[in-house]
Amino acid sequence: MSGKFYMPAEFSEQQAAILIFPERPGSWGYGARPAAKVFARIINIIAQHEDVYVIVSEKSRAAAEDLLESSSRIKLLDIPTDDAWARDTAPTFVRNTDTGKTAGISWKFNAWGGEYDGLYAHWELDDALAGTFCRKAGFDCISAGDFVLEGGSIHTDGEGTLITTESCLLSPGRNPDMSKQQIEETLCKFLGCEKVIWLPRGIYNDETNEHVDNVCAFIRPAEAVLAWTDDPSDPQYELSSACLEALENSTDAKGRHIKVHKLPIPDVPVCVTEHDLAGYTFEDGEDIREVGERLAASYVNFFFANDIVLLPQFGGENGASDKRALDIMSALLPEREIIPIDAAEIIRGGGNIHCITQQIPAEL
Amino acid sequence: MSGKFYMPAEFSEQQAAILIFPERPGSWGYGARPAAKVFARIINIIAQHEDVYVIVSEKSRAAAEDLLESSSRIKLLDIPTDDAWARDTAPTFVRNTDTGKTAGISWKFNAWGGEYDGLYAHWELDDALAGTFCRKAGFDCISAGDFVLEGGSIHTDGEGTLITTESCLLSPGRNPDMSKQQIEETLCKFLGCEKVIWLPRGIYNDETNEHVDNVCAFIRPAEAVLAWTDDPSDPQYELSSACLEALENSTDAKGRHIKVHKLPIPDVPVCVTEHDLAGYTFEDGEDIREVGERLAASYVNFFFANDIVLLPQFGGENGASDKRALDIMSALLPEREIIPIDAAEIIRGGGNIHCITQQIPAEL
Repeated sequence: MSGKFYMPAEFSEQQAAILIFPERPGSWGYGARPAAKVFARIINIIAQHEDVYVIVSEKSRAAAEDLLESSSRIKLLDIPTDDAWARDTAPTFVRNTDTGKTAGISWKFNAWGGEYDGLYAHWELDDALAGTFCRKAGFDCISAGDFVLEGGSIHTDGEGTLITTESCLLSPGRNPDMSKQQIEETLCKFLGCEKVIWLPRGIYNDETNEHVDNVCAFIRPAEAVLAWTDDPSDPQYELSSACLEALENSTDAKGRHIKVHKLPIPDVPVCVTEHDLAGYTFEDGEDIREVGERLAASYVNFFFANDIVLLPQFGGENGASDKRALDIMSALLPEREIIPIDAAEIIRGGGNIHCITQQIPAEL
Repeated sequence: MSGKFYMPAEFSEQQAAILIFPERPGSWGYGARPAAKVFARIINIIAQHEDVYVIVSEKSRAAAEDLLESSSRIKLLDIPTDDAWARDTAPTFVRNTDTGKTAGISWKFNAWGGEYDGLYAHWELDDALAGTFCRKAGFDCISAGDFVLEGGSIHTDGEGTLITTESCLLSPGRNPDMSKQQIEETLCKFLGCEKVIWLPRGIYNDETNEHVDNVCAFIRPAEAVLAWTDDPSDPQYELSSACLEALENSTDAKGRHIKVHKLPIPDVPVCVTEHDLAGYTFEDGEDIREVGERLAASYVNFFFANDIVLLPQFGGENGASDKRALDIMSALLPEREIIPIDAAEIIRGGGNIHCITQQIPAEL
């Protein structure tokens, strides 16, 4: 199988998306009801453009059915999970170069760092999800064995180039026994890439060890958006600057320079409030939140579905930063509808729209 | 990938075998040293005929190197495991019908029954082994997701027929949410079979819920050996009779009747002795042994490697039953060398030669 599959870009045609209905009390405050409404809104929108697999526990099925529109495109699957980050726990889908058929990859998942700095103490269900999803949904599944990876830590252009961050993939909580070169070879083998571009860092205070999908994304081959701030006193400034430098000094798999568009983060940081904190119930061994903690809010954490982009909005500053991001993305992608989504409830869970979605590329 | 792979018969040409060096104190008495010698003898013999991957922990590496012959065909791999049953925890290998390349399947492993009647409380390492082996040894790996199966519970003829036992595959400890029909479809999908022959039972007191590999094995297409006793007072009598009836009433995937050769079990049962019991150290949650307990001794638990068969011997009755089995197998397989192996130390661990080996078919 290896060498015969490649990961299509997210912006290319999709057959379906995958989301997991939110439930975990330490991630989703107030019984997960506010988050569930946002998840449902996203699912209902995507289902206007492609199929959506919604993984939902038996316990939450009634709540999901209540919030989701009745559509033949929405397919509920009962698979137990530890949390709702489909980007990181659902399969990463690749396409066979010969047959055009798609297959899912099951990476080893260890809750973003395992014993070293993982975010929860038990991740067995999340680790098992990719294989189980494939079996139940009828997709072939490729196992990556003990190679630890989350889908949010990679982006591809579909033409042989992969971007990732050193802060995440070289973290001691992932694959500490492998060299950078071995990690690169493993990525290329499973994802059919020829070139890996390493960004040094991601978004400040991103608890995933700074996944690339929060800081940088391809919008078409040789063209990317990068989370940005012009404020040198903002801790994000150095991180984004280092990423920009890495991108400017790289070429992609086809030897092209990558055109980088800056996509500013909110001018006023988004932080955990007392009201937010009161809604959570944390388990032993779970990473907890604190009032005033800065959340890793970035507009780069959008999701491409067919013909659309779902763009996070955070609601501060009377919408000024939100509108700026919407204007930039609309100008960059005139061929798509850019749909603003109030993502405040998702960012409080620790991620954003891209983190809760996973695409399945079309078969050719 | 599905539908394009099939599982070659064990008796067809192999590129390699896989064994795990024994260590677990509750399976292998007296510091696993007596068992290790037998494992090493088996590895050294197989390495005269094909490559052997030996999975060995860092802790046991020196002991393994001491017992194993120096051979370029013996490849040590450092992968942690819970025990040494490669048949059940290493990948099941299949071959691509188009390319002739081989790939491993990673089934879900739950220590022969999970919470229901599994034999040990922790099986995470064993569950992870198949994927990790493939990654480290450079084989493609197909994940079967949450479908629970052990390699010892299936045999194929390489021509579309699979045999298994109802007592194992329909046990509540395996895939209780699946119907017999769904299990059959899943086996056929992953293993490229068209016909499943269900034997009702296996070997008396076999703690695997009666794996087929202890009771019946193909020796060539449309020809099998069946563990047998002519003594109606032996608890094995009914079990073997039921299997014979099932085989006689079946045809294989090509519509052929299967010629069944009876291979008698030892006339005097092999049982746990006080000396055996004194050597074990059991963990919490582990299935323990008792003095006088009858072990599931069967000569069917042999292993085919290229040009040879490794046949278990138990050493009782001045070798009468052992010799009978050797004579039968020699007559049935004149084209192969039948090598008798004193398997007393392996049967005390709960299995036999077939249980500790797994073949990787040749690539075409």
